[in-house]
Amino acid sequence: MRYLTAGESHGRAITAILEGIPANLEITKEDIDRELARRQGGYGRGGRMKIETDKANVLSGIRGGKTLGSPITLQIENRDWINWEEVMDPFGDSGYSQEELVIKKETKIKHVKPKVTKPRPGHADLAGSLKYNHEDIRNILERASARETAMRVAVGAIAKTFLKNFGIEVVGHVLQVGTVALDKEVDMRLEDIKVKSESSPLRCVDEETSQKMIEEIDRCKEEGDSLGGIFEIRTTNLPVGLGSHVQWDRKLDARLTMALMSIQAIKGVEVGLGLEAGKRWGSKVHDEIYYNNKFYRTTNNAGGIEGGMTNGEPIILRAAMKPIPTLYQPLSSVDLETKEKFKASVERSDVTAVPAASVVGEAVVAFELAKAFLEKFGGDSMEEIKANYENYLAMVRER
Amino acid sequence: MRYLTAGESHGRAITAILEGIPANLEITKEDIDRELARRQGGYGRGGRMKIETDKANVLSGIRGGKTLGSPITLQIENRDWINWEEVMDPFGDSGYSQEELVIKKETKIKHVKPKVTKPRPGHADLAGSLKYNHEDIRNILERASARETAMRVAVGAIAKTFLKNFGIEVVGHVLQVGTVALDKEVDMRLEDIKVKSESSPLRCVDEETSQKMIEEIDRCKEEGDSLGGIFEIRTTNLPVGLGSHVQWDRKLDARLTMALMSIQAIKGVEVGLGLEAGKRWGSKVHDEIYYNNKFYRTTNNAGGIEGGMTNGEPIILRAAMKPIPTLYQPLSSVDLETKEKFKASVERSDVTAVPAASVVGEAVVAFELAKAFLEKFGGDSMEEIKANYENYLAMVRER
Amino acid sequence: MRYLTAGESHGRAITAILEGIPANLEITKEDIDRELARRQGGYGRGGRMKIETDKANVLSGIRGGKTLGSPITLQIENRDWINWEEVMDPFGDSGYSQEELVIKKETKIKHVKPKVTKPRPGHADLAGSLKYNHEDIRNILERASARETAMRVAVGAIAKTFLKNFGIEVVGHVLQVGTVALDKEVDMRLEDIKVKSESSPLRCVDEETSQKMIEEIDRCKEEGDSLGGIFEIRTTNLPVGLGSHVQWDRKLDARLTMALMSIQAIKGVEVGLGLEAGKRWGSKVHDEIYYNNKFYRTTNNAGGIEGGMTNGEPIILRAAMKPIPTLYQPLSSVDLETKEKFKASVERSDVTAVPAASVVGEAVVAFELAKAFLEKFGGDSMEEIKANYENYLAMVRER
Amino acid sequence: MRYLTAGESHGRAITAILEGIPANLEITKEDIDRELARRQGGYGRGGRMKIETDKANVLSGIRGGKTLGSPITLQIENRDWINWEEVMDPFGDSGYSQEELVIKKETKIKHVKPKVTKPRPGHADLAGSLKYNHEDIRNILERASARETAMRVAVGAIAKTFLKNFGIEVVGHVLQVGTVALDKEVDMRLEDIKVKSESSPLRCVDEETSQKMIEEIDRCKEEGDSLGGIFEIRTTNLPVGLGSHVQWDRKLDARLTMALMSIQAIKGVEVGLGLEAGKRWGSKVHDEIYYNNKFYRTTNNAGGIEGGMTNGEPIILRAAMKPIPTLYQPLSSVDLETKEKFKASVERSDVTAVPAASVVGEAVVAFELAKAFLEKFGGDSMEEIKANYENYLAMVRER
Repeated sequence: MRYLTAGESHGRAITAILEGIPANLEITKEDIDRELARRQGGYGRGGRMKIETDKANVLSGIRGGKTLGSPITLQIENRDWINWEEVMDPFGDSGYSQEELVIKKETKIKHVKPKVTKPRPGHADLAGSLKYNHEDIRNILERASARETAMRVAVGAIAKTFLKNFGIEVVGHVLQVGTVALDKEVDMRLEDIKVKSESSPLRCVDEETSQKMIEEIDRCKEEGDSLGGIFEIRTTNLPVGLGSHVQWDRKLDARLTMALMSIQAIKGVEVGLGLEAGKRWGSKVHDEIYYNNKFYRTTNNAGGIEGGMTNGEPIILRAAMKPIPTLYQPLSSVDLETKEKFKASVERSDVTAVPAASVVGEAVVAFELAKAFLEKFGGDSMEEIKANYENYLAMVRER
Repeated sequence: MRYLTAGESHGRAITAILEGIPANLEITKEDIDRELARRQGGYGRGGRMKIETDKANVLSGIRGGKTLGSPITLQIENRDWINWEEVMDPFGDSGYSQEELVIKKETKIKHVKPKVTKPRPGHADLAGSLKYNHEDIRNILERASARETAMRVAVGAIAKTFLKNFGIEVVGHVLQVGTVALDKEVDMRLEDIKVKSESSPLRCVDEETSQKMIEEIDRCKEEGDSLGGIFEIRTTNLPVGLGSHVQWDRKLDARLTMALMSIQAIKGVEVGLGLEAGKRWGSKVHDEIYYNNKFYRTTNNAGGIEGGMTNGEPIILRAAMKPIPTLYQPLSSVDLETKEKFKASVERSDVTAVPAASVVGEAVVAFELAKAFLEKFGGDSMEEIKANYENYLAMVRER
Repeated sequence: MRYLTAGESHGRAITAILEGIPANLEITKEDIDRELARRQGGYGRGGRMKIETDKANVLSGIRGGKTLGSPITLQIENRDWINWEEVMDPFGDSGYSQEELVIKKETKIKHVKPKVTKPRPGHADLAGSLKYNHEDIRNILERASARETAMRVAVGAIAKTFLKNFGIEVVGHVLQVGTVALDKEVDMRLEDIKVKSESSPLRCVDEETSQKMIEEIDRCKEEGDSLGGIFEIRTTNLPVGLGSHVQWDRKLDARLTMALMSIQAIKGVEVGLGLEAGKRWGSKVHDEIYYNNKFYRTTNNAGGIEGGMTNGEPIILRAAMKPIPTLYQPLSSVDLETKEKFKASVERSDVTAVPAASVVGEAVVAFELAKAFLEKFGGDSMEEIKANYENYLAMVRER
Repeated sequence: MRYLTAGESHGRAITAILEGIPANLEITKEDIDRELARRQGGYGRGGRMKIETDKANVLSGIRGGKTLGSPITLQIENRDWINWEEVMDPFGDSGYSQEELVIKKETKIKHVKPKVTKPRPGHADLAGSLKYNHEDIRNILERASARETAMRVAVGAIAKTFLKNFGIEVVGHVLQVGTVALDKEVDMRLEDIKVKSESSPLRCVDEETSQKMIEEIDRCKEEGDSLGGIFEIRTTNLPVGLGSHVQWDRKLDARLTMALMSIQAIKGVEVGLGLEAGKRWGSKVHDEIYYNNKFYRTTNNAGGIEGGMTNGEPIILRAAMKPIPTLYQPLSSVDLETKEKFKASVERSDVTAVPAASVVGEAVVAFELAKAFLEKFGGDSMEEIKANYENYLAMVRER
């Protein structure tokens, strides 16, 4: 299982090719679009999100509501392409003949410079422009944009649909936004986390905390600042034995961490106790083993992974997102061409994207789990995989 | 660049094949053995570490003190093999004919059961035995053991030697052991971090903290408990532009944190501010850009990576290690065969391995950086790579 | 450098994502569409090819006529989608409610069965349907179709444009169609091969042979049979040292062979002398080494590759294509559902596709060469790569 | 499943790490050493082969005659290391202090130059030395040597043992040596091919042809020349559906031919009819489909692969090997340092290695088939895989 995404933020479309999904997985267009809508929600987003509702076109790999086993092409067209065609034209002069283009968006008018020379702190702008030898920072920022995560959510939607066939759910929820943290332990069933986070504008399971987060966002917005936060991903019903201890790059925790860290703006990842595991004494960390027809634990400090493998308990992961680097309260920077100092300009008006990031987190975790699942169980059709899966569960039960 | 490690903890040897190191890199046996010795040091280790001093044999890929460009075989023989041959024999009966084998180690006598049926909490034991359908947990624990990290250190030693040719250093130091944390910011040159951590039994740059860590370890040892901790990896002189923003699996931060998380017992990883980045407001997070003949920053909250690429500042990574799960104060578990409850046995007597883990951390980070470096600069010989590197630095300087 | 293709033959579009092309490569839409047109030409093709002229849309990765360094999305829409929408609809009932759909194509009317149960010999039909547990063979044949090679030609067009910047050309020409073989050695400059093959309806450099091939095709068409053939790929100006001898999967000949063999219907691949090398005595095979300011050969039996590396001489590869398995003269087969014997039906009317295959061959070879080139020379922008390349050439010249 | 080999021909040892073999595969030391001995046999080999009998040490991954699921280390020590230590010493001066070293081998005395500057036509010598910027060609030729194939045979031995558990055999036999070709079709059961080729000094199933090959070799030896040839690999009992049509790099024929072409000196590969498929009319090529409780064919021109997948028929592959480039009848070349013309020296005295190559061919094909098998059937233990396999066979039978 593998995927590639492609596409610039204001290009004609963003696209993903997802390969390795087995045949005969039942899936609906809603399974995908619902996830896209979830990513676009969340309190604290600026204008753009509200206007566009992402819908993914399926261009291959699915027929009559079932996967074919062939690569799936997912594509989200840029509804604003007409306004950007001149700037982003693959083969024209990219609007360089004009110093500024006027883009009309509903009631607003936006002035866009085809060429960008002012790198923004906290973005790929400077490093990317030097690496790829681009004079126009737009050539970097268009691809580095978190817009790309929409494709990952679409890919993840298919992975989630796959996992659901085996009773496996992947649920994200928000633990912290800026200085406001959920200060109680989340000791509820996954189903409840799902329902409660879904109904919160911050994807936070606690209403009171949710309210405080809203206040923090409002306060931050007034001051022209931005906020990051922390979200958690939990799963349920994972079989024991996904991933492997035998080689460094097959460890499931390592692969899940890479997936989460690859999301734009993530700066920290934890499994189970996470950093806290480095601070406690051992007798307070390890999860004792019990047996009652099957092996089980009464604690889950390991976060469901021991020796790089699922141990049968729910996986628990957390990721920390830095604040959106585009601020109204501008940061100092230097023009790439003139070397003159300037205050970094605002291109977007989101205060925070942590709720959205938790949806992206679900998606990338779901992809990695589906991949590890298929590595373990093989098979090319849902029918075959289900039989293999049952066979393994029976083997484990007999131990 | 890629490597595979192989070998069981008490098998005949552990081995690595490292491929992709260019030709004509000058290297000495000491460059490798010195790193192996560093891994074996640190206050808080039990008996085994002191007896064996690891020495890596180079079986291929190096001739006359220079790399050939061909795969490098690194091998560490098990000096205790004579005692374990019966248990671990590839083709014999693995000592199953005897219930217990007596192993003489210097003045001590050890009783070893060829077959292990008691899974230890916090280890790969249970998950691995179910996944691979092994009745004998030894078939899992021998490979899951952190002994494997010796090979990663040997591989990393070569990567470090490669990087040094470009003035790049990778230095690890310990920030926390159990409840004792270094509570001041480490605001010193990398060279000083290196010297100070090297002279500390805990690899901690602060003497006072180091002393407190020793006390914590001693106290913990008395109580039969174990400790984890947190270490940090820093680099210097990295060029701008390693890694890439264009595809999720090419982001350098994602790859570095995967490498760190793949080390046995790591449960959390951070880049730059890490989790703290999720808690601060944006204006306190992003590193403003300045210019004085070259672009530079006065802060490094990003930890040297923006948009999945090095931005020219030092990389700063942290990893949290859980306590060693083998405790004198035993944990509850269940026998795999009989399903009877038992208290998990002690096999090793280390209290903590955080200093060692920081050396392994250096190694895996050095490997990933060397890999990213070679992806960017290409080349098959040191001479070619150096010319390519200089060429790029000149291009960047002219911007 | 990597790419994935996706898309069903009669689906809405076929798509490729190509990643790893460096920044600032100048390219035009014509560079791509010209190659697509070349694939569609050639004497012996049936109706479909003539109607549709493939045009690739570039949806990402290129702006203002230059590559960005980000993944390039290439897409060819199915101009006949309106006719196939019901059959291939991702989320509808795929036309199963109707036994037969009527498709109007210009003056012709085609009767299409949404569900196919009759596997055709020589196709993926039977193996694919069993592997993926599909009852409807359409779910296999749509993806297995050689229509997919259009995307590979588009990908290869970009690789060719990249290589041209370094004076490297990749040229295919046809040596044999059915029983008609070019019986003289092709001892001409690559430029001449290019011009002569381009002007031949069979992509054969010899007019007389070309004429005989036409006659063979006409005769074959009359008898309702089909033809395969053999094409050759040659290059020029490749530097010494692409590929590597150090590990089996890095050998350039192995990778080129895999690329050619992955083209639909290819059954044999040769490098240089090829099979003939197994029949001659050694003194008649190996290419002696001479020197005159640079090392050179006067023969090229090795086909430009020794030890898995380019040796500085032109690469010469040949591939044999089996005849198109869809015949008017039908083959015996068995219905998947009813197990009744039938004579395999005709879906297309091409007699031979060897000229097209030679264009696909150019594309996949160009991709592998560009990949090997970038592995050797690194770099993220054309400017950087050119400097690295010159640097290496100078090093080699000084030897 | 993956493997890396390492080691120089005259280095201390050659090594392979093979990862991905499932747990609980029963295997003996003889299973491996027998294959190594087969590689060393064959009429036409010179002195070296007769002296050394390769034995592989297993250093990891196998215990008590069963695989653990962890990586398997295979190692063959160089029995002549004592003689080569000075030349190949990783960290000494590699004997450069002496112009010539005298190596005593049984009754013979060999004069070895530590540094080699004379590139041999037909070898990696020239290309490798320029690519890796080595002045000493020994740094290339030691790794490029076909000695490396011993490790591939050891790896393949394990793959073959794995496949045997599913009734799958992989058998190689020689069709041609120099001008002598087996001129009858090999229409016998795989078991007979195996027995007959095994008893032939040329691995040729026909005694008369075998005798002619011996005569050709003798004649060739007298004239100081060398011979290549053609061998064939056949399989039996492969299930339908290994490999896939959905993406170019998953096609089994492409992967198998890459594996074959990666063997030193191979210049051509064929699947089924191979090149002949390009010359026949379609009606004489495609294998009609029949049914009698299961689908079957009466011909196998496809060589067991359609659409990049096994179709249930035996796989048939052929590979052509060029003559050994080291001739008594020397070839012209140019000294790398002095640029003076010379006649390439003789280092080995084999006339042909085609029988050995057929054993290597079995090995690399077995590896690829085992890999494709595990991709399809998943599973981490033999017990699990067998259940998955039976499950799939039952599904296919029910179609």
